[in-house]
Amino acid sequence: MIYPERILKSLILVCLPVVTFAQKDPKLTEEWEPVPKVITPGVGTAPPSDAIVLFNGSDLSEWQGQNGTAEWEIKDGAMVVVAGKGTIKTKRVFGDVQLHIEWRSPEVIQGEGQGRGNSGVFLQEQYEVQVLDSYENVTYSNGQAGSIYKQHIPLVNVSKKPGEWQTYDIIFTTPLFKEDGSLGRAAHMTIIHNGVLIHNHVKLNGPTVYIGKPKYKSHPEKMSISLQDHGNPVAFRNIWVREL
Amino acid sequence: MIYPERILKSLILVCLPVVTFAQKDPKLTEEWEPVPKVITPGVGTAPPSDAIVLFNGSDLSEWQGQNGTAEWEIKDGAMVVVAGKGTIKTKRVFGDVQLHIEWRSPEVIQGEGQGRGNSGVFLQEQYEVQVLDSYENVTYSNGQAGSIYKQHIPLVNVSKKPGEWQTYDIIFTTPLFKEDGSLGRAAHMTIIHNGVLIHNHVKLNGPTVYIGKPKYKSHPEKMSISLQDHGNPVAFRNIWVREL
Amino acid sequence: MIYPERILKSLILVCLPVVTFAQKDPKLTEEWEPVPKVITPGVGTAPPSDAIVLFNGSDLSEWQGQNGTAEWEIKDGAMVVVAGKGTIKTKRVFGDVQLHIEWRSPEVIQGEGQGRGNSGVFLQEQYEVQVLDSYENVTYSNGQAGSIYKQHIPLVNVSKKPGEWQTYDIIFTTPLFKEDGSLGRAAHMTIIHNGVLIHNHVKLNGPTVYIGKPKYKSHPEKMSISLQDHGNPVAFRNIWVREL
Amino acid sequence: MIYPERILKSLILVCLPVVTFAQKDPKLTEEWEPVPKVITPGVGTAPPSDAIVLFNGSDLSEWQGQNGTAEWEIKDGAMVVVAGKGTIKTKRVFGDVQLHIEWRSPEVIQGEGQGRGNSGVFLQEQYEVQVLDSYENVTYSNGQAGSIYKQHIPLVNVSKKPGEWQTYDIIFTTPLFKEDGSLGRAAHMTIIHNGVLIHNHVKLNGPTVYIGKPKYKSHPEKMSISLQDHGNPVAFRNIWVREL
Repeated sequence: MIYPERILKSLILVCLPVVTFAQKDPKLTEEWEPVPKVITPGVGTAPPSDAIVLFNGSDLSEWQGQNGTAEWEIKDGAMVVVAGKGTIKTKRVFGDVQLHIEWRSPEVIQGEGQGRGNSGVFLQEQYEVQVLDSYENVTYSNGQAGSIYKQHIPLVNVSKKPGEWQTYDIIFTTPLFKEDGSLGRAAHMTIIHNGVLIHNHVKLNGPTVYIGKPKYKSHPEKMSISLQDHGNPVAFRNIWVREL
Repeated sequence: MIYPERILKSLILVCLPVVTFAQKDPKLTEEWEPVPKVITPGVGTAPPSDAIVLFNGSDLSEWQGQNGTAEWEIKDGAMVVVAGKGTIKTKRVFGDVQLHIEWRSPEVIQGEGQGRGNSGVFLQEQYEVQVLDSYENVTYSNGQAGSIYKQHIPLVNVSKKPGEWQTYDIIFTTPLFKEDGSLGRAAHMTIIHNGVLIHNHVKLNGPTVYIGKPKYKSHPEKMSISLQDHGNPVAFRNIWVREL
Repeated sequence: MIYPERILKSLILVCLPVVTFAQKDPKLTEEWEPVPKVITPGVGTAPPSDAIVLFNGSDLSEWQGQNGTAEWEIKDGAMVVVAGKGTIKTKRVFGDVQLHIEWRSPEVIQGEGQGRGNSGVFLQEQYEVQVLDSYENVTYSNGQAGSIYKQHIPLVNVSKKPGEWQTYDIIFTTPLFKEDGSLGRAAHMTIIHNGVLIHNHVKLNGPTVYIGKPKYKSHPEKMSISLQDHGNPVAFRNIWVREL
Repeated sequence: MIYPERILKSLILVCLPVVTFAQKDPKLTEEWEPVPKVITPGVGTAPPSDAIVLFNGSDLSEWQGQNGTAEWEIKDGAMVVVAGKGTIKTKRVFGDVQLHIEWRSPEVIQGEGQGRGNSGVFLQEQYEVQVLDSYENVTYSNGQAGSIYKQHIPLVNVSKKPGEWQTYDIIFTTPLFKEDGSLGRAAHMTIIHNGVLIHNHVKLNGPTVYIGKPKYKSHPEKMSISLQDHGNPVAFRNIWVREL
């Protein structure tokens, strides 16, 4: 297509303002990609469509014990710690996740402090969110329900009474290690307990240890979620996880 | 108390191992203070005991319009945008918060793209979480429901059908400015939409603007939460906030 | 200006590609503002043109003692700790800074461990970069030269021999506190010792304390830089600071 | 060893205070491990003992061109861009590093803006620190000397005159990617230009691209450092790197 000079000049005169205008065009800051995947939310705390259900009330098929089969009890739609049967963990492994889990400490109080309704939700088998009956139960703050064990005290104590179901919604960001095994990115957690924020993207200093100072040690990007047998018959139900 | 040298030596011999042992004592990593404040959780999405209720279904007493009274409609326990009555904002001001809010786009679809069920939840009157009917409705990804407007695309699209109530649970970390007005800490948001994580502690680059690049400008640590009149009769209910 | 429809259509046909092209225009990602301030670098470790010189070899006019005048000795162009005369601090106060400081431990070794050439550079009077003669001198790693005292071990030990001048280049990011006194942004440091990186934007957990766990306490955004009298005649020279 | 009860009681009475005292013991916060590796600093900008020297003035043995041999010129102890011979890169690959490099734009000014003394230091072949003669030379701020190209404007313009040697000290933190290729940790840079801080641990949004928005794409943890042939005879010397 060939234009006489006169026409071309006119076009330039008209188009230049268009380009200039384009820089103030709201369309320039629109991003059309990626298009987020469509998922269907669950009702209430029920799993959304992209969740992996780890326990739906009937069986332990997603779990294993330290030496094979998970031997906890199934009762009234919950899985219950059987003292001495040991900590159990998922057969699947996970990296960054959103985890929903419900738990209940025994209605009849036995023991005190750390001895009362004690269990734990371990991300990657080593980063523990404490499970404890912390309803009118004195213990150290960084060991009460909702604490990231011995690393972070929960912002508030939003514990329900013994025997009532409680929820944890945990957003876990896995640590990443460099090829030489040194830490590249620390683990982080955001936790909502019974609908209330108790940790806001806090940084973990390493695995949650009982004695001494935490210290990261290189591990795979995906590992199991485990639930602790601490000798108390704590119950769990409605467990689902979304990979982030 | 005075001991003969012989006794003192014995004591030292016995006590030194005690000190050494103390360094491996699990008690050393217990923290007993602070003791988190006890609060009572709400049932489901109901407010916990330490929440400030911004709308409980009956009146707009916590809200104001641009020029005085908030003139949105109260209908069936919800507050509804009245086109042309303008954006409303809370009388109280807030810094870091956990905000729960429920919203509903009109059941009868009108318009398309950004014209369909459009409103917005603004933290500090300038950081917008987009409200839009994004159920089978094509628009730019960083402008769909749950986007942090023109800054962050939601991880997934977890929109419900038009006419259904939806929830946002927003954890907002306010920006902090230095005395010279420059940015000291950027704003961050974690957002859960209908129970599903759509933003994990993302950093905001400034106020969420329609045109051009965001740019922080110093403002007070506490400002109002505002809800946008974008011309569509979007409804809101069950709004509560916790100061963090 | 009125065009016949035929001409308008032609213009639109030509201009639309121009707008589209504009979105791939490299000019769109150019930022012409702000224009960084022009400064003149110093030669070697000499101060750049925008630095505040805190000690140029001749007097202590920028410094004060705990109870008034700074009573350290000026000798051979250096300022030297006089045991018992106490820690000194700048009269000016600072927030975020780049600090250059040179120091020298006594050539004749006296004492051992923490007792040998001990002093300290305190940012904001409470965040200490340890000064110590760590040349073939055993002590705890988080207390050796270049450590952020009892918080961060230096990446390497790049100490010179006693009696030789050493440099610290410290990039300090001040903590910021919210109006309620809680921590809003933690302090961070990057430190280069004798030209070698020893800390890369590490986060401080609070003031650097001798006993117990660090804990932030709200303080002004700008405070003095102080130099410690730890009883050893450590010398300092060529001290300058740039406000960031 | 057996004690009569009386003695045991005495010991307990004495030792308990010792344990209590131990919790206030300054020794509890001493860390003796790891012991940082001892290295010898270089004099001035000379390499420290643990550096890998990438150019010492005499040969290009550490470098390669796009298609084999690096064909830049060696002149007066410097390596000089030969227009058209192309960008060169190190044979070795690197992750997190401290990089020292000196550069000089031609003494006789030719061209203007981006056309004057243009080259670039690329970390991992894709994250560019701009090299440009920015002494009294107008261009876009995020493209001037010391800019992280089109992402971060330098804090100040500390350029020397054309023909003078300038230094960059770059602390580079590599991005880390998750197994699924998504970003796990963003790249960061701290840069000191001629002794003056121009970037303080800024976050990169992706590779530094000429057109459009940066976007991370998974790559190995270690890649080459490259120097750009942008057509101008920019010289480089005294290049060394330390792996972090």
